[in-house]
Amino acid sequence: MIVVMKHGASPEQVQHMIQRVEQLGLKAHPIYGTEHTVIAAVGEKRDEFRQSLESGPGVAAVVPILAPYKVASREVKPEPTVVRAGSLAVGNCHLGMIAGPCAVEDLEQTLSTARAVRVAGATALRGGAFKPRTSPYSFQGLKQAGLEILAAAREETGLAVVTEVIAGEDIPLVARYADVLQIGARNMQNYRLLEAVGEEGKPVLLKRGPSATLDELLLAAEYILNAGNPNVMLCERGIRTFESHTRYTLPLASVPWLHERTHLPVVVDPSHGTGHTNLVTRMAAAAIAAGADGLIVEVHPDPESALSDGYQSLNFQQFEELMSLCRRVAEAVGRKIGPYS
Amino acid sequence: MIVVMKHGASPEQVQHMIQRVEQLGLKAHPIYGTEHTVIAAVGEKRDEFRQSLESGPGVAAVVPILAPYKVASREVKPEPTVVRAGSLAVGNCHLGMIAGPCAVEDLEQTLSTARAVRVAGATALRGGAFKPRTSPYSFQGLKQAGLEILAAAREETGLAVVTEVIAGEDIPLVARYADVLQIGARNMQNYRLLEAVGEEGKPVLLKRGPSATLDELLLAAEYILNAGNPNVMLCERGIRTFESHTRYTLPLASVPWLHERTHLPVVVDPSHGTGHTNLVTRMAAAAIAAGADGLIVEVHPDPESALSDGYQSLNFQQFEELMSLCRRVAEAVGRKIGPYS
Amino acid sequence: MIVVMKHGASPEQVQHMIQRVEQLGLKAHPIYGTEHTVIAAVGEKRDEFRQSLESGPGVAAVVPILAPYKVASREVKPEPTVVRAGSLAVGNCHLGMIAGPCAVEDLEQTLSTARAVRVAGATALRGGAFKPRTSPYSFQGLKQAGLEILAAAREETGLAVVTEVIAGEDIPLVARYADVLQIGARNMQNYRLLEAVGEEGKPVLLKRGPSATLDELLLAAEYILNAGNPNVMLCERGIRTFESHTRYTLPLASVPWLHERTHLPVVVDPSHGTGHTNLVTRMAAAAIAAGADGLIVEVHPDPESALSDGYQSLNFQQFEELMSLCRRVAEAVGRKIGPYS
Amino acid sequence: MIVVMKHGASPEQVQHMIQRVEQLGLKAHPIYGTEHTVIAAVGEKRDEFRQSLESGPGVAAVVPILAPYKVASREVKPEPTVVRAGSLAVGNCHLGMIAGPCAVEDLEQTLSTARAVRVAGATALRGGAFKPRTSPYSFQGLKQAGLEILAAAREETGLAVVTEVIAGEDIPLVARYADVLQIGARNMQNYRLLEAVGEEGKPVLLKRGPSATLDELLLAAEYILNAGNPNVMLCERGIRTFESHTRYTLPLASVPWLHERTHLPVVVDPSHGTGHTNLVTRMAAAAIAAGADGLIVEVHPDPESALSDGYQSLNFQQFEELMSLCRRVAEAVGRKIGPYS
Repeated sequence: MIVVMKHGASPEQVQHMIQRVEQLGLKAHPIYGTEHTVIAAVGEKRDEFRQSLESGPGVAAVVPILAPYKVASREVKPEPTVVRAGSLAVGNCHLGMIAGPCAVEDLEQTLSTARAVRVAGATALRGGAFKPRTSPYSFQGLKQAGLEILAAAREETGLAVVTEVIAGEDIPLVARYADVLQIGARNMQNYRLLEAVGEEGKPVLLKRGPSATLDELLLAAEYILNAGNPNVMLCERGIRTFESHTRYTLPLASVPWLHERTHLPVVVDPSHGTGHTNLVTRMAAAAIAAGADGLIVEVHPDPESALSDGYQSLNFQQFEELMSLCRRVAEAVGRKIGPYS
Repeated sequence: MIVVMKHGASPEQVQHMIQRVEQLGLKAHPIYGTEHTVIAAVGEKRDEFRQSLESGPGVAAVVPILAPYKVASREVKPEPTVVRAGSLAVGNCHLGMIAGPCAVEDLEQTLSTARAVRVAGATALRGGAFKPRTSPYSFQGLKQAGLEILAAAREETGLAVVTEVIAGEDIPLVARYADVLQIGARNMQNYRLLEAVGEEGKPVLLKRGPSATLDELLLAAEYILNAGNPNVMLCERGIRTFESHTRYTLPLASVPWLHERTHLPVVVDPSHGTGHTNLVTRMAAAAIAAGADGLIVEVHPDPESALSDGYQSLNFQQFEELMSLCRRVAEAVGRKIGPYS
Repeated sequence: MIVVMKHGASPEQVQHMIQRVEQLGLKAHPIYGTEHTVIAAVGEKRDEFRQSLESGPGVAAVVPILAPYKVASREVKPEPTVVRAGSLAVGNCHLGMIAGPCAVEDLEQTLSTARAVRVAGATALRGGAFKPRTSPYSFQGLKQAGLEILAAAREETGLAVVTEVIAGEDIPLVARYADVLQIGARNMQNYRLLEAVGEEGKPVLLKRGPSATLDELLLAAEYILNAGNPNVMLCERGIRTFESHTRYTLPLASVPWLHERTHLPVVVDPSHGTGHTNLVTRMAAAAIAAGADGLIVEVHPDPESALSDGYQSLNFQQFEELMSLCRRVAEAVGRKIGPYS
Repeated sequence: MIVVMKHGASPEQVQHMIQRVEQLGLKAHPIYGTEHTVIAAVGEKRDEFRQSLESGPGVAAVVPILAPYKVASREVKPEPTVVRAGSLAVGNCHLGMIAGPCAVEDLEQTLSTARAVRVAGATALRGGAFKPRTSPYSFQGLKQAGLEILAAAREETGLAVVTEVIAGEDIPLVARYADVLQIGARNMQNYRLLEAVGEEGKPVLLKRGPSATLDELLLAAEYILNAGNPNVMLCERGIRTFESHTRYTLPLASVPWLHERTHLPVVVDPSHGTGHTNLVTRMAAAAIAAGADGLIVEVHPDPESALSDGYQSLNFQQFEELMSLCRRVAEAVGRKIGPYS
């Protein structure tokens, strides 16, 4: 950390802050500049103490130097993590293609979708049984019945099942059926839930909150990793900005930025990231060109009749076209879709 | 809802959408414009069906007309709600002043703060026993021991206790000690938790998520109201924007905007909303001038040594000055601080 | 500046950067931390060289310490600047109240507004003769005829005239009629125009761009100050965020933040800052409570028939109510409206 | 337009608004809903009158139906526009690759860069002679001397020259040397400048302002098109959001969104869009996968010594790698780089 003193801070204030830094077990290196004095605080401590120093007398700011996350960082583990769950492999040379309906509505809808995406080349099935909905008046999911349908679809197609868990008390139930537990964007900072999926141990797909910084995303992953679960996939699904022509703004530069800093794989969700069927395929291709380790895409047999998110779902033919475009782009950037490369 | 057809949508597409609207139990009024056809869909249904219509053939957009929330709206209940909890009254002519430490650290810290804010004129005590923290390496709160300290402080000072609950399983414990259950910004869309505090029945302080729209805030309140709990206070605590000189951006226009649309009282948090001690007092005064029904302010005996949020906490003297300024502004805008007006 | 080297940067890279820092005429203080080496670069240079250092080998980041602006800063001039222009005084104890129509439409509209706002207590008249409009199909202003109308209104009411200039070539014409030259939000970073109004010398009202940081606003002011014109008023008029229920988000914490760092006065525009008539008065009062040195408010005899911005304009009675509320809040925070205090 | 009346608006207010709509030359279709009355206003008028209606009595909101731009829209001209300028062709099947230094610094720097990017496959040379800089203390460009250097580089390499013009008075000078006039992001809403480049007639590269909506970008283009210049390239270069790990957030979904609505070609700037050398290549490839019609990339012989933007410039080898990756992705999505396809 660098403690920046205000212009005109008194020698006593500087002395006081040097002592504070040393009380925290850090070594203080004061540097007397032409307008400001700064105190470099050296040691292994991350910025736990940053806040404490910031309210010291005469302090203008405290600048962190170390990244706040540890276990998720490439500095700790340079080689990329590959997360595997049945038919799904994500990371390093493996491109995971997760597709399926926003919500599980009935057996036929889910089975037919699973078959169609399997044929098109998907490597896992997504589908929501517990749906967190903005409005209490919207469809909230089939719950256990939905999980059973997903398991039936896995049985038939061999596709691993990715499904969301929205509360700690549901984890045992959901984990009985799912291959990957998804933490939704709204729950990215539900720390109790993060710890609980960390303890459960099944692979986790962790979605970025729409106003979370990438540091906060990595710290959320850190909660899961610290609880003993190394199988975390990060998911960029768009952030909230002033743009209203898309549902969210999908900032694909997150992908190479994260790859530099973390060994965890990065999946992109072009469905939520755009919110419009006719933008999904192009952004899927762009995500792969940006280096994404996987995609998660909403597909529905008849988007117009979907109980949720129909406006951003692809029908079977559109998904086939997406897969065909993505396969070509993946090859262009030296990646292959699927687990068996 | 207004279904806007694309320029050049075919008569068959228009006809199809008219049928879809009527299948949903709404009455369809097509209007043939010079460039676009629009279909007004009339009926009591809110926008549950909006998504379904948006993916119809030839549809450019669906524009909602009705607000998505009901029970929270002034249309349903025109008179302002007053939320009361012991020494605290918030809403209508009552200005609630909630103050105290970010986190309960020990008995002495909390008691001395409670005494000081009571003398200065606060009408409730805040303090965190369960702390949701961005980093797993930060102080996570004293939990039950913290709740006991808060109860002791209430015992002595008579101040109602406002404290956060971060998981459904903690509600019985927290509700045993607290007068008001706070839902933090990160949990604004933790719907299971919202339903649970709705069922518990104690007054709730619901903080706006940093990227939540005001419609989403009202829908989150609706989850609580629908579960049978009418005592909800909304809390504006700042949104995330490109501004980095403040921790969040505090958009005070939320206050009059909400007052037009909802009967629920609106509390402002200038501590999180700015993130800097020396901006808190001015923004507290501004919030009251904007019409806020209450404030929630972080106060600490020695901010420099606080275990969390010291950089945005006031010391006792600063809080006294805040109260003195706020009292004058409250009078200027025709409000009085406290429950006994 | 602090040059932060990457984890694992080689001794040669550190040495290279030390040399680079010294080539720039700064003194280099390397500090060898447990994970990172940082090099403090001490000297009078601001961050002109920051970019150059950022692309050095092994560099993770360069952290500026000095603020990038000079002449605008309180460190250079601690006492607050008071800007005066005829009937208008803004800064220190003076609260300037600038009111009038968005666009000058005709003599009667402007004269009647000038009279009404004068009676209500305004200390200057605003009105656009050159209108920058998002759409080429919108009303673009009366230009010279509009300036003549403004001058006639000043003649009769004694109110100083504040009006926008949108291009360097118009400055001589506009300056012949105006008392204060307004730089609109869209032109905040039109540096050629800033230099030109700096050279002209008349007082300037500089509006913040909707995505400008406060540092960028102060640097824009610096362009004007450096050209020899010390009479600059800053204007907070709202920033663009994800919020769509207001036209912009009005971040009033800018006011105390700017007051700490600059001696220039800060005016707030609650009309553009909210975009809705019924939010203007409350946000005007809030701005004064936050410490604003003045307001600029849109007023129109008949907002419904206004050629621009009617939806955010007050009618005469609404403005009177605004003045009455603001006067009470001003008193509560120890300020007085007008030049003669 | 749809005029939405407030819940509880009186029959007189509805009648008044019907009359207002018809006074504006539009046909009014009132629809009486269960909670709100809405009035559809049909006619060829765009939303010039929207503001006027919004301040009517009892009006809750006015919802525009028609896009505010005309000439730029695909409805007016369905086939894509190809912009050509010497060696550069952009649009339809043509991918333009514009590369070169942020600022022209001297002959050697510019010539060597032009040669290198030509060999790597660029189809035009960029370089700034007039530099708009946030700080008055930064390097402001070589001006005419810079233009002469650019012309010399074109002479030798045959590459068309793209360079920024920052003020109307400079247009004759800049147009004498440049093949394409660039309007920078800060000037996107400098309407006088837009009209002036519209009248000049040379092809224009129009950069999106960092807080401009895409509708505003298209309206800015409309200013140029309306002045008689059909050769406009739009440029997505990133928007300002809460993300601070990248300089701007690059929202590539703009590309397919714009392609649906406008016939104008869309160029992407991954250098400003990310602000970090090591993110540029990946985002360049992603832009092409998203369907961009061209790229504009900063390249410098020695980024570390660049007078501006070194931290986001590629060196020659990095640019070669970018071209090689982009060529493969272009092929994968069915595009070819260069004018001779």
